[in-house]
Amino acid sequence: MPVTRLTDAECDALLSECPAWQLRADGKAIERAFRFGDFNAAFGFMTRVALYADKADHHPEWSNVYNHVNITLTTHDADGLSQRDADMARAIESFL
Amino acid sequence: MPVTRLTDAECDALLSECPAWQLRADGKAIERAFRFGDFNAAFGFMTRVALYADKADHHPEWSNVYNHVNITLTTHDADGLSQRDADMARAIESFL
Repeated sequence: MPVTRLTDAECDALLSECPAWQLRADGKAIERAFRFGDFNAAFGFMTRVALYADKADHHPEWSNVYNHVNITLTTHDADGLSQRDADMARAIESFL
Repeated sequence: MPVTRLTDAECDALLSECPAWQLRADGKAIERAFRFGDFNAAFGFMTRVALYADKADHHPEWSNVYNHVNITLTTHDADGLSQRDADMARAIESFL
């Protein structure tokens, strides 16, 4: 199934709804840095995201160092942002 | 409590016991790339490492993209590798 890229208007709407996320310089991904109280809290959050990702079959690119988590969302099949990233960003916000 | 750096001989022993790990160019960390069957397997592995890390109060620097996981182990308090990294590398190998 082909994946449609978000329009510029849809991108703008997403970023205005999720203002902590930033559009990557190439416009093909959104990124956010998170900071938690400790590793346990950071990995607890990651686990919630992972369960969502596994169910949605859409996966973040992410890294973790102690209480810091960085997440990049993009859709390779769309060579940019798709509704899957928008849904995942909103889900991630709901886990905070 | 001060953390002692591994001696060169201890480093050599670790790398010879865990040959899939590589010493970082600056000699202060070891790194390994892992590849799993899918995201579920990759995150299942990460969860085992996280439970170890939380218990040991020693944490990996790591990233994940779908079925790929990259782990760097270092001990900031030692400005290099310590016994904690050696123990964690051995534990991680046991989770594979």
